[in-house]
Amino acid sequence: MPHELNLNADLGESFGAWSMGRDQELLPLVGSANIACGFHAGDPLVMRKTVRAALDNGVSLGAHPAFPDLQGFGRRKMVIPAPELEAMVIYQLGALAGMARAEGGTLTHVKPHGALNNMACEDIALARAVVRAVRQFDAELILLAPALSHLADAGKETGLRVALEVFADRAYDEAGNLAPRSQPGAVLHDPRDCVAHVQRMIEAGGLITTSGKVLPTPFHSICVHGDNAEAVEAAAAIRHALESRGHPIKPLPHLSALTRT
Amino acid sequence: MPHELNLNADLGESFGAWSMGRDQELLPLVGSANIACGFHAGDPLVMRKTVRAALDNGVSLGAHPAFPDLQGFGRRKMVIPAPELEAMVIYQLGALAGMARAEGGTLTHVKPHGALNNMACEDIALARAVVRAVRQFDAELILLAPALSHLADAGKETGLRVALEVFADRAYDEAGNLAPRSQPGAVLHDPRDCVAHVQRMIEAGGLITTSGKVLPTPFHSICVHGDNAEAVEAAAAIRHALESRGHPIKPLPHLSALTRT
Amino acid sequence: MPHELNLNADLGESFGAWSMGRDQELLPLVGSANIACGFHAGDPLVMRKTVRAALDNGVSLGAHPAFPDLQGFGRRKMVIPAPELEAMVIYQLGALAGMARAEGGTLTHVKPHGALNNMACEDIALARAVVRAVRQFDAELILLAPALSHLADAGKETGLRVALEVFADRAYDEAGNLAPRSQPGAVLHDPRDCVAHVQRMIEAGGLITTSGKVLPTPFHSICVHGDNAEAVEAAAAIRHALESRGHPIKPLPHLSALTRT
Amino acid sequence: MPHELNLNADLGESFGAWSMGRDQELLPLVGSANIACGFHAGDPLVMRKTVRAALDNGVSLGAHPAFPDLQGFGRRKMVIPAPELEAMVIYQLGALAGMARAEGGTLTHVKPHGALNNMACEDIALARAVVRAVRQFDAELILLAPALSHLADAGKETGLRVALEVFADRAYDEAGNLAPRSQPGAVLHDPRDCVAHVQRMIEAGGLITTSGKVLPTPFHSICVHGDNAEAVEAAAAIRHALESRGHPIKPLPHLSALTRT
Repeated sequence: MPHELNLNADLGESFGAWSMGRDQELLPLVGSANIACGFHAGDPLVMRKTVRAALDNGVSLGAHPAFPDLQGFGRRKMVIPAPELEAMVIYQLGALAGMARAEGGTLTHVKPHGALNNMACEDIALARAVVRAVRQFDAELILLAPALSHLADAGKETGLRVALEVFADRAYDEAGNLAPRSQPGAVLHDPRDCVAHVQRMIEAGGLITTSGKVLPTPFHSICVHGDNAEAVEAAAAIRHALESRGHPIKPLPHLSALTRT
Repeated sequence: MPHELNLNADLGESFGAWSMGRDQELLPLVGSANIACGFHAGDPLVMRKTVRAALDNGVSLGAHPAFPDLQGFGRRKMVIPAPELEAMVIYQLGALAGMARAEGGTLTHVKPHGALNNMACEDIALARAVVRAVRQFDAELILLAPALSHLADAGKETGLRVALEVFADRAYDEAGNLAPRSQPGAVLHDPRDCVAHVQRMIEAGGLITTSGKVLPTPFHSICVHGDNAEAVEAAAAIRHALESRGHPIKPLPHLSALTRT
Repeated sequence: MPHELNLNADLGESFGAWSMGRDQELLPLVGSANIACGFHAGDPLVMRKTVRAALDNGVSLGAHPAFPDLQGFGRRKMVIPAPELEAMVIYQLGALAGMARAEGGTLTHVKPHGALNNMACEDIALARAVVRAVRQFDAELILLAPALSHLADAGKETGLRVALEVFADRAYDEAGNLAPRSQPGAVLHDPRDCVAHVQRMIEAGGLITTSGKVLPTPFHSICVHGDNAEAVEAAAAIRHALESRGHPIKPLPHLSALTRT
Repeated sequence: MPHELNLNADLGESFGAWSMGRDQELLPLVGSANIACGFHAGDPLVMRKTVRAALDNGVSLGAHPAFPDLQGFGRRKMVIPAPELEAMVIYQLGALAGMARAEGGTLTHVKPHGALNNMACEDIALARAVVRAVRQFDAELILLAPALSHLADAGKETGLRVALEVFADRAYDEAGNLAPRSQPGAVLHDPRDCVAHVQRMIEAGGLITTSGKVLPTPFHSICVHGDNAEAVEAAAAIRHALESRGHPIKPLPHLSALTRT
């Protein structure tokens, strides 16, 4: 397991008059932000303000591209032909990179959102379409993908740097997928449970399934959330626990495991 | 009047299942393309294909940002606060620049579309918001703006390179604005009339109003259209007339008048 | 001043994953709901749930049509030709009436939203376009319009029943328009101030301007808000004050002043 | 096989500045129009003009509800929870019924569009969600559904009147589904082939598969298209052939097989 770790969170998910998330509280805690690009959330002004706030907090900038589905928050499965999906991903990467550029920053990673992410984790053809778009836009971008996913596989096979992530507040099934939210215990709400879950995964060197089995895998980043006060508290507790056990939290491009040699 | 000239056209205005414009016929005729960015027309795949086709024809790439108004084709006036408008323009520039990058090309100019363009030509505050967004995104972009407009003024005062355009098929009122389409003679349909209009403006060194008055101004580019067979024919006739009178047609960044020294 | 009064509020302004407003707390307080129709807020499921909740509370159903501007929450001025605007209003009325029908209820009033409402209050031609759409869809609908507005005038001249409204939490300028929010004192936050403002208007029989002048007008309805706890508290205090002074709160179609004879 | 038949076509599929289809040429040929409701195509003004034109041609009005997917023209599969989908269908039915009402007409049938239709034909649970929405909105509406589909089954089991349709220009596989467009011979382009295909199905009393097998089923309506001159020619040829063989073409609600007794 790498010494240095990253914490990442989905940010900039407000839209127009509607607010979502506790971005201001999360930004001092995380190393990297996955910023909505306008397809599932985020509008240009929200994107710009989120980029500015991330830069002000020394948080590295990631794009969080999604299916074009504002009403469904990008959580609805859609079947989109690969050439169209690739163009959609490039569009979103470009838009966020433009916002970063206007604010004097640089886009350094990509993490697909919601149903696009879930589908790409299970479908290697879809994962390859996403990865192709990322590489065509900028082969230096880091792909942030769930450990043991097809999306991570696709990123590696194409030569992208891949940061593997685990979830602090979600249980894993025996295959290493997230247990469905409908299942009891699938979502951890208590900050202490989240900290313990993360520590077990670090000690075991892999994902821990609901049955207690270890699925060995390195990982570089831990995904935290900022939906409510409890989630922010969990993120703070995880950061504190990691730092006090000698794991400095860094932005993705500063992790030595991901540095281009 | 510069020796070299540019012809520009609005391209990539299809959307999803709907086609618009004779892009394939116009591309061999023009030097620069203003490509829709998804707000008034264009979707990511249309944008990508249009970028590809422009590059294949040696046509330089421009962004054609607009108000967020797909149903109104960006032609409806909207009142949008400057910070939000700037973010919208950056978003669109970034998206098109991303598409250019994925196809191995470079975005080199910007021309606002429709109501955004018209309003920025008449309102210096709005023009400055647009220009601020362009400069924050990339101070090397060329602004393509109507001759004698506030938009051109705003571009010059901020240090952007400004390419001034005239319209081949539109009459000018006494103030140098486009005569409203509802006015008889405001739109020239006959290709021969378009050629003659352009030649008179070149010879006079300025815009020619409906009363025959000359409003002196240099210009670098002539806007042509591809809505129908007649418009494409006019574009071809203009190109032929200009070339045969010793005005080579070049992409905007190749015009010596606009080259950075 | 009529004996019976109505309280109305804008409801159903959530969208997809984003929540807005304290609808559940407001519904027991108001007589009539202005329900977003999907153009500035509200999606089909939000609309359906809001209709259901309104019916469960004995609250009468109104449509709250807006400009097509989700990102701007319908607050941005747009210039839309009358035939297109009329079709947009009919579309939204139909959609909400359909939702009402599916839930066993009936649409009984219309109140335009945001910039559409503001523009229609000041521009008689626009007001007539809105009113034409309402009448073509259903001449029995009640138009809920600000007292002393061109919108109210347009409704009356076409034979619609018009319910005149005043705002509990907004100051009026000398012409009877809402004082701009940027002006000190334009928005009343303290529930006691709101109650006092309403009582003064009832006693004076008209709007009271910031200078204390009375602009005589009858009114039938008082608009209240549910953005935050303070606003809901104000609504409750207004209802209590009105009822305790002998003004029963009724749904718009039950006001005897608006009953078809 | 019923004596009287219906021809139906998808109409009103323009959007904003983009035109699609030869509605004016098709309207004199068909008995019923399936009119886009703004989710995959059609905007309020297009809807209104299409309703007006249909009424002027004595063509009965149907709603053509779709997934919310303008860019994909409603042809992309989406996975939407039943309560949300039902609300979306009601929304679209209401909007088109409102437009019909404003023009003095009545909505009399419903035919789902594109991916929603295809998915509902194969998935009885989805079909039941669609049918539930239709019935809750108006139990008197006729459901226009492909013969031998789950959608038709769901309509019948809930007590709706169901008009069964066949396609003039599409081949059927051995299960009675449309042969995929990618398969040679799946789409008939020659008007004479379309006429012959329809006549064979009438004579055989059922669908005819690519292998020549007959799948017995009554049908009431034949779907024709107006994408291009050839398609309109085919529609005209089919109408002529049917009428000359003693099959009068009627609007759906006038078919005696569908009349409420």
